[in-house]
Order: sequence, then C-alpha cells, then structure tokens
Amino acid sequence: MNSFYISNISGSSIQLNANESKHCIKVLRLKKGDMVQLMNGNGSLYKAVIQDPDSKKCLLEIVEEEKFQSTRNFRLTIAIAPTKNNERFEWFIEKTTEIGIDRIVPIICQHSERKDIKSERLEKILISAMKQSGQTFLPELASLISFKEFVNSTFDGIKLIAHCESGEKRLLKNSVLPGKNILILIGPEGDFDPSEIKLALEKGFIPVSLGNSRLRTETAGIVACHTVCLINEK
Amino acid sequence: MNSFYISNISGSSIQLNANESKHCIKVLRLKKGDMVQLMNGNGSLYKAVIQDPDSKKCLLEIVEEEKFQSTRNFRLTIAIAPTKNNERFEWFIEKTTEIGIDRIVPIICQHSERKDIKSERLEKILISAMKQSGQTFLPELASLISFKEFVNSTFDGIKLIAHCESGEKRLLKNSVLPGKNILILIGPEGDFDPSEIKLALEKGFIPVSLGNSRLRTETAGIVACHTVCLINEK
Repeated sequence: MNSFYISNISGSSIQLNANESKHCIKVLRLKKGDMVQLMNGNGSLYKAVIQDPDSKKCLLEIVEEEKFQSTRNFRLTIAIAPTKNNERFEWFIEKTTEIGIDRIVPIICQHSERKDIKSERLEKILISAMKQSGQTFLPELASLISFKEFVNSTFDGIKLIAHCESGEKRLLKNSVLPGKNILILIGPEGDFDPSEIKLALEKGFIPVSLGNSRLRTETAGIVACHTVCLINEK
Repeated sequence: MNSFYISNISGSSIQLNANESKHCIKVLRLKKGDMVQLMNGNGSLYKAVIQDPDSKKCLLEIVEEEKFQSTRNFRLTIAIAPTKNNERFEWFIEKTTEIGIDRIVPIICQHSERKDIKSERLEKILISAMKQSGQTFLPELASLISFKEFVNSTFDGIKLIAHCESGEKRLLKNSVLPGKNILILIGPEGDFDPSEIKLALEKGFIPVSLGNSRLRTETAGIVACHTVCLINEK
C-alpha cells in the first residue's frame, strides 16, 4: 500500500497538500475508493480511503488507526558537524534512521567546512528511510546550532564527545548504559578545536573513542549510533 | 606525504605504472628527490624518493620500510549480494573498509537484481578507503560467485546467514565469539530464496538476526561488519 507522511493528523478527514495530492493522483494514479496508508511519524499508522481524487487537494477519509509504542527505553541524540560533501551527510541521515536514532542535531564547529544544510531535502530522506525501514517514529532533525550554544544547553542523560585528540578515553561501548539516554558529539573533518573539547569537558561531556580506525565524520556517526543501539538490543 | 598502493613491492627500485606515473608527475607535480609513501596492502609502508620523474614510468628508490602486524586475531568475511544500485554497494565497500573487514565476496543469489560488478572501480574504492582510514591492510575483494558454489566451499570459523524469513534466530551479537573467524552471508533486496536458506543451513550456517529494523542490503552489511568488530574491540 502506498504510504504518506503527515505530521499532524486529527479528525477523520484529511486533505493532502498540493505536492502529495499531485503525487497521489497524477503519479501513482490512485482513484476514488483506493486505500492508502498514512503515518504521523509518532507511532500511529492509519488506513485511509480516497474520497475526492483532486490532484491539488486530495481528500481522504481515515477508516482505521493503529498506535504503536516505541520499543526503545532510551533516547539517542547525535550532534554532528555536517560534512563538506552533502551526500555524505545524507547517507548519515539515512543510515542512522534505518538503524535507530531519535534526534539529529547539526552543529557548526570552528573547523566546520559546511555551515548550512538543506533541511527540506534532509527531512525527505528521513521520511523515506523511516518508511523504507518499516518504522513508525520519525527522528527529529533539529535546527543548525553553534557548537558553543549546543553544549551549553541541558540534556538529561549521558553526554559523550568522540574527539580525535590524544588523552585518556574509554571506548564508547564501555561508556553506554542500557536504558539510559545518550548524547554523542561528532566533530567535523578537521576534528573539534581543542578549545571546544575543553568547553565540552567543562560542561560534563565524557571523552570517548570509537576504536582504532580513523573514521570519516559520517562513518563515525553511523558507528556511534549502531554501538548505542547494539548495547540496548535485547 | 602522497601515498601510492603497489601490490607487489620487491627490491629497492620501483617503477610506477603509466596511470600512477602520470598522477605522480603531471597531477601532483612531484619532482626528482621528492619523497612519497608506498603501501603494499599487506602491512608494509615504505618511504621512497623519486629518482626519475618520468610521467609514463616514474622510477622510485625505497629508502625505508616499516612492517606492521595486524592487531586483529580474527578474520571477517562478508559474502553479500551486490545491490541493484551500484553506489549503495560502493558505500558498503568504503564503510566496511574503514570499520574493518578482511574479505568481501560478491555473491549472485536467485533474487539478485544485479549480476555483475565493476571490480576495477571497487578496487580503487578499497584502496582509497584503506589510505584514508590510515590502515595498512587492504581487504580482499573476491570474484563474483554464485550463492550455491560459495556455500559449498570450505571455511574455517563460524558461518552465519542473516536472512529475513521467520524462524528461530539468535541476534548476531550473541553469535560472535571474540578471536574467532566469522563468515556472514547477506542477501539481496528481495532476501535469500527459501531454497538457498535451506541449503545454507544444511551446510552448517547458523541463522542470525541483525535486530528489529528492516535494513537495506548495504546497511545490513555495514551493521554486521561493525557488530563483529565491536565484539572484538578491546
């Protein structure tokens, strides 16, 4: 069944926006009476029937709702510097959505080569990866924020920073506790600046290592995400 | 320092092939007396000086050799069906090389949508990822082989198959023992055929699950690789 993401679903009658109406009627060629699936990215799946196959404002009637609870008892946030190459960041977004992430915070660091993101495009990738991997919860993509502002914000859980400077570091896998909220900072291609690492440590972040390999930024993000999921896997 | 991969290095005098000579002299504009790094993909790093900066057959003199031992006490082989989209398979190759893999075997399954690979291009990606991640061992890319022929070959270690059919399966993380050689089979977009799963089980492969998420083929490969590396991480 074709599925559509709509962030706010209330009532039993839903109108698709212009883009999705066009996709539904002109591209998929669905007709009155055809059934589609709607998802709100917050655990609910709906079955809906096309009432008015208008290619600009397609009208649907919800006939069934199924509410899923998250099977995770922890929240994973990764704050990461977008890569110079957009595509590499998009892969990070897609892969961590498949593997399991709750919140992605793009951060601007001193050594960041990219200081903007294409939020709309990234949202589409999130939605597509959520659908494709059969999940019902959409990870949150936060607004771009400076490293300094972000590390000064509060977080209820274990705060970690994966930097490449030498010094005492535990392995990430030994720093994660099952069932605990985790926040991990991943730096840009040129790593965090020493002053940023110092600030993070002052703010209670614990330095961690992702192992012996020198990983690209997006690989570090994927590996960090998977490590946390694996430790929580039952 | 610019580095070049040469699979067979013997003696102290080395001639780059036409492609690499051109890259070294025309692109990088290196001159007589300049120092470069050579790697043989088998743990050895060499420092070499340009003797004759010929853009078709550049001649180098090795002045120093450093031999590294592998820090891994296990070998990881992933036999995987190449994805329909070439780029996704290339990402699998790049990411697993960064994370740590010994052998990649492209397999043709009944539901494979792709039945060929561009070996030369994939080799370049392997070499580039090895250099970029600061490793000295080049993973082996085996020739394309049919699923049936591959599962009939011998393997000294734990043999696993990650399929999506229902049935009793342990989590991969509970099926890997540190220090043991591991072989994991990953199927194509449409999963293995039931007859293939049956054959693999007859040949001693143990069915494993990669968790609750529905992963794309290349993501499954990356996640499987990282799980094995993480369990062996000290």
